[in-house]
Amino acid sequence: MKKSIAIYPGTFDPITNGHLDIIERASVIFDKIIVAIALNTNKSPLFTKDERKNMINVVTKKFRNIEVDSFDGLLVDYTIKKKAIAIIRGLRAVSDFEYEFQMSLTNRKLAPSVNTIFLMPNEKYTYLNSSLVKELARFNGKIDCFVPDYVRKKLEEKYR
Amino acid sequence: MKKSIAIYPGTFDPITNGHLDIIERASVIFDKIIVAIALNTNKSPLFTKDERKNMINVVTKKFRNIEVDSFDGLLVDYTIKKKAIAIIRGLRAVSDFEYEFQMSLTNRKLAPSVNTIFLMPNEKYTYLNSSLVKELARFNGKIDCFVPDYVRKKLEEKYR
Amino acid sequence: MKKSIAIYPGTFDPITNGHLDIIERASVIFDKIIVAIALNTNKSPLFTKDERKNMINVVTKKFRNIEVDSFDGLLVDYTIKKKAIAIIRGLRAVSDFEYEFQMSLTNRKLAPSVNTIFLMPNEKYTYLNSSLVKELARFNGKIDCFVPDYVRKKLEEKYR
Amino acid sequence: MKKSIAIYPGTFDPITNGHLDIIERASVIFDKIIVAIALNTNKSPLFTKDERKNMINVVTKKFRNIEVDSFDGLLVDYTIKKKAIAIIRGLRAVSDFEYEFQMSLTNRKLAPSVNTIFLMPNEKYTYLNSSLVKELARFNGKIDCFVPDYVRKKLEEKYR
Amino acid sequence: MKKSIAIYPGTFDPITNGHLDIIERASVIFDKIIVAIALNTNKSPLFTKDERKNMINVVTKKFRNIEVDSFDGLLVDYTIKKKAIAIIRGLRAVSDFEYEFQMSLTNRKLAPSVNTIFLMPNEKYTYLNSSLVKELARFNGKIDCFVPDYVRKKLEEKYR
Amino acid sequence: MKKSIAIYPGTFDPITNGHLDIIERASVIFDKIIVAIALNTNKSPLFTKDERKNMINVVTKKFRNIEVDSFDGLLVDYTIKKKAIAIIRGLRAVSDFEYEFQMSLTNRKLAPSVNTIFLMPNEKYTYLNSSLVKELARFNGKIDCFVPDYVRKKLEEKYR
Repeated sequence: MKKSIAIYPGTFDPITNGHLDIIERASVIFDKIIVAIALNTNKSPLFTKDERKNMINVVTKKFRNIEVDSFDGLLVDYTIKKKAIAIIRGLRAVSDFEYEFQMSLTNRKLAPSVNTIFLMPNEKYTYLNSSLVKELARFNGKIDCFVPDYVRKKLEEKYR
Repeated sequence: MKKSIAIYPGTFDPITNGHLDIIERASVIFDKIIVAIALNTNKSPLFTKDERKNMINVVTKKFRNIEVDSFDGLLVDYTIKKKAIAIIRGLRAVSDFEYEFQMSLTNRKLAPSVNTIFLMPNEKYTYLNSSLVKELARFNGKIDCFVPDYVRKKLEEKYR
Repeated sequence: MKKSIAIYPGTFDPITNGHLDIIERASVIFDKIIVAIALNTNKSPLFTKDERKNMINVVTKKFRNIEVDSFDGLLVDYTIKKKAIAIIRGLRAVSDFEYEFQMSLTNRKLAPSVNTIFLMPNEKYTYLNSSLVKELARFNGKIDCFVPDYVRKKLEEKYR
Repeated sequence: MKKSIAIYPGTFDPITNGHLDIIERASVIFDKIIVAIALNTNKSPLFTKDERKNMINVVTKKFRNIEVDSFDGLLVDYTIKKKAIAIIRGLRAVSDFEYEFQMSLTNRKLAPSVNTIFLMPNEKYTYLNSSLVKELARFNGKIDCFVPDYVRKKLEEKYR
Repeated sequence: MKKSIAIYPGTFDPITNGHLDIIERASVIFDKIIVAIALNTNKSPLFTKDERKNMINVVTKKFRNIEVDSFDGLLVDYTIKKKAIAIIRGLRAVSDFEYEFQMSLTNRKLAPSVNTIFLMPNEKYTYLNSSLVKELARFNGKIDCFVPDYVRKKLEEKYR
Repeated sequence: MKKSIAIYPGTFDPITNGHLDIIERASVIFDKIIVAIALNTNKSPLFTKDERKNMINVVTKKFRNIEVDSFDGLLVDYTIKKKAIAIIRGLRAVSDFEYEFQMSLTNRKLAPSVNTIFLMPNEKYTYLNSSLVKELARFNGKIDCFVPDYVRKKLEEKYR
């Protein structure tokens, strides 16, 4: 029996209930999950790297096999460095599908040993993403069914 | 560290290189994969249950953690009986997507503890399926890049 | 202010919670909804026309502006005969989309004054349809979150 | 019989024949349609709020139950304030589908009583949108089959 | 300059205005178009091979570079036999897309020199196909905007 | 037999193996292919117009019927000026589909005699595009299976 490590990469700006749902499912399949904040994106995030790390740490405390980290550069290089056997992605809607396949196939070409596994979140999170949550928070919309309570408070502080 | 079992269900009429590609990827993630022939479908298969079992056994011999079985009734009932933690599905094209999501969400409602994980086959198998292979074999088309040699022979025997 | 009538056509073999969800939403927008069983389909139904009518009548009793009927021939001809201003369709997933658009555009060509309006069911019914419910019922799967209790009993009687 | 109000929200920068097609269809179903210019978007519009209002007023004069307005903040809050029972959206192509569903489901979570109804424009407007019209106008392309004459003139003035 | 031949395969049961639209477009690009009735399908056609050939001949008379033929067996074998450099397919909607890609990629694997080229029909034929036309004809629906007059008469004779 | 000219438009920032695959297929069907760099886009390119022209010239030298050019303004105007009978587009994935259809239908409305023909690249280029290549090059990822050697060197010079 192998000790299996998987990477769950993302911007997590901020982490939502949809992300937590995927983390919970992945934590049953792998021995360790590294939630890895991608820093190399073009988007300018609302929360700093440390704020995002802190939020993930707080809301994933209940899982015992989660580690929080961040990375710069290519995901496959990071995955190999961490000796992970898989990359975890949530697959929600058709629009996710092709982007995820492009990423997965590209990563596979760069590092054939790394597989991407796709998990489906609960259907109530099908159309949830961090941008939507920020949009709602900006206009004082109710977000308590979309993010954990701790994240909701941090969002309210930002937009106050 | 858990001993993890996963079910890879299908009709396998016959098993193709696309199925084998998924089995190989899954065999790295789980401790045991049960390739499970679904018998409760409406399609009338070309190969009998025993012929299909035999072909799968022959072409998966090189993997050490594969078991071949068949089941009647609902997949979730079978999955629970086998103490599996996951159902494995290949996800190839957008047209697969919605059917697989329907199945996955339905199974989850019937048995919340069972997760479906999706794996992507090599892109050269994106549009490959058993029906296509049978169609080609029926008209003497070349099928040696779609199925293992042993399966190709069995198909040729059927259509001779 | 106009007295507006709309047709909600379908096979309803049997009616599910997804259909009921659409009926409830439509009943707020229109003055009268005619739930119309289409008899001209190629599928051989599990329930007779009268069994289906009876089930719809029982489970829509709580709505005051619902009428149950059936029709043969083209939907547009029926719609015009009933002086309805709209056809109601539930739109659930991308796979529905193109079929519904084909139907809607064809109907519009045949009868320009008739519009199709699309309503989204609750997301928990996104992947629900009558075939799935029958498939589950056939194998003794749990269906109480998919159909009303009265329909569940009728299904169990059929498959006993 | 109820007096039914529906909101048709959008950027309308500028209003096109596709929008007008939807407005005409909706005007048959509801007693009053409020065409509501959304001001809270990130896009920087070509036309000011007043220019857009003016264009909509001019080209919808022939309909008797249309009101033109604008709103800031969340659409659901505006919808409730206006006592509307529905939000109207045009559904044209698969790419619209998922975005519209996300919006519709989010709005429903924030305000369960508000339903989104989808209408299909004439197929000749399937791929028409305001950005395309502006792109064509910028390069002196022919746009008279895409926008009313009044809007065409306003576009030509902007790009002269 | 090459004398270029292309195959336009299909069931043509019966030929519609959508098929004619594609044939007209293709006839400008290639020196000769062979409209080829595929006989190896599982569907049981409404019209015999000779009736279909006759209808295609009548309605394509105005084009000078069209030949009508039929074939059994694999399309690629037929294409090579006819020394054609391309297979022509109409691409109408997303649901066509994946099936056409599967066929195109499979044909390419069997015969690398044969390319499939896709043409878009006029948007008014986006959702038109032979099955829809037959369905409408069966119930006396108006079909004169979907098929040429000669085909309409043949359909009416069949369903009288 | 006509001397047929076709336009293959794009940003080509830079040209990839996927573009070359399409050019090779098109060069068999048409007598001349004009690879036309579109300059009227909003994106700020990595390479100048002349750098892009130079790269295309170098990597298409092996084809005898290719001309490299650039254009400002609308594609249809350019196509008519060049007396071309067709616009060539690669169709790779469902996400391409609707954008390409919008463009194709719009161009057809502006210039009915111009047809767009779609070709499928080899499946290994399904998810390849210039942005992905630049992203990988920026982080020192391996790109030699995505672009010709000459282009790879130019990318490395840019990101050094």
